[in-house]
Amino acid sequence: MNAAPTTLPTEPALTSYLLRHADDSLVHGQRLCEWVARAPRIEDDVALLNIALDHIGHARTLLTTVGEREGRGRSEDDLAFGRSEMEFSNARVFELPNGDFGQTVAKLVCIALWETELFGAWAASDEAVLAEFGSGAERECRYHLKYATTWAARLAGGTQESAERLEKGFAAVWPHLGELLVIDSLVTDLADVGVIPDHARVGAAWTARLYAELAGLGLALPELVAPAGPQGRQGNHLESFTSLLAEMQYLHRAHPGATW
Amino acid sequence: MNAAPTTLPTEPALTSYLLRHADDSLVHGQRLCEWVARAPRIEDDVALLNIALDHIGHARTLLTTVGEREGRGRSEDDLAFGRSEMEFSNARVFELPNGDFGQTVAKLVCIALWETELFGAWAASDEAVLAEFGSGAERECRYHLKYATTWAARLAGGTQESAERLEKGFAAVWPHLGELLVIDSLVTDLADVGVIPDHARVGAAWTARLYAELAGLGLALPELVAPAGPQGRQGNHLESFTSLLAEMQYLHRAHPGATW
Repeated sequence: MNAAPTTLPTEPALTSYLLRHADDSLVHGQRLCEWVARAPRIEDDVALLNIALDHIGHARTLLTTVGEREGRGRSEDDLAFGRSEMEFSNARVFELPNGDFGQTVAKLVCIALWETELFGAWAASDEAVLAEFGSGAERECRYHLKYATTWAARLAGGTQESAERLEKGFAAVWPHLGELLVIDSLVTDLADVGVIPDHARVGAAWTARLYAELAGLGLALPELVAPAGPQGRQGNHLESFTSLLAEMQYLHRAHPGATW
Repeated sequence: MNAAPTTLPTEPALTSYLLRHADDSLVHGQRLCEWVARAPRIEDDVALLNIALDHIGHARTLLTTVGEREGRGRSEDDLAFGRSEMEFSNARVFELPNGDFGQTVAKLVCIALWETELFGAWAASDEAVLAEFGSGAERECRYHLKYATTWAARLAGGTQESAERLEKGFAAVWPHLGELLVIDSLVTDLADVGVIPDHARVGAAWTARLYAELAGLGLALPELVAPAGPQGRQGNHLESFTSLLAEMQYLHRAHPGATW
């Protein structure tokens, strides 16, 4: 990052856009950390923690960029720990409780597919901040996808119970996926001037791969549609988000400005 | 690892020795995971989780080796999740609760110094299983040591409160360090035939570096001595170890033999 980044004519829209995706990664990473010592095998404990750490790493990069671009002197920590629930703009699927291992695998499949499509599109973009982040993040998310789809196939082809849990997992995640297809004015404005990729194409590529993945697992679920009302992107979060934030922000808020 | 490892004349002593250090790493990693979303900055959250993951990685390697060598068909998961408290042979300092950040930094300094000395000695040993593991683990522990000593210097030279917390942290860890200097018959027998390094030398090198580190921080603590009675290595653990194990083993014990 440059110390004094160029302010584009598209500011502050691009910064808001980056913050959305920083929040997606931060909240997803935080949720996955709850699997510490909870996974069925040490190997999966380690794998889930590594996926969580990758996402917290993504969040750190994006939050630092956001802080620099908005020019109000906010650090990654200020942005992570100092905002209230309504100021978080992550989509709801990222904050969704993990559920059992089947549901976590289902969630990981959906999210990793979304991220590889989105970050792949970022990587191909002309906007330097997206291109640089996107190429690294996409590579990591491909590994997460491989892990998630390998487990999904194993559960689908395992016992009757494992197949049922996976199916229930996808059913639980499904109602929260449509939000990723919402194209609001922020996205339209930025895409119109070519700063960000066309989200309609990203969404179409994502859903096509998602339906194909489900078909391969012998599952069928209704077509995804973008919801009409305000959801996570507008600060309207699930009830369970309150305790996630409380957990994440407790120490920092109990000792405001603590530097050690 | 070979599918059918050579059984040395020193078996089962070497396997018991490996298990001790596997338990040290497993329990240390598990404790550090409790810092998830608890560290003062996201950066430290990530650093502590990475140190935890490195240790769980060390434990996995050593537990798998132990399982192969003992030839009773136990996997890393059986060994991690299927043993009772008295069967864990980690030294007590590894299971010590984290305390505040100052205490965790103090604990990390002491342990990372110990590990770099021990694993460095393993790396130079003629026993292949120790040499192979030791060289990789020592390299990682050098990074942990750098992180811990950097923070220790920052806390010692920070505010009055941070210096006091660090000092209290070392004072809290101190009574549990002497166990690492115990040289029992298992160690003596293996060292006598040259299978493991001389622990008296490892201990002397460790305490010398530890006292020098403390002096650099402006701290003075009494000389460490090996305790007389049975401690963690003999399965005699701190009271707080019960809840650590319960947390770690809960899922596996609730669903014995669950493979997903």
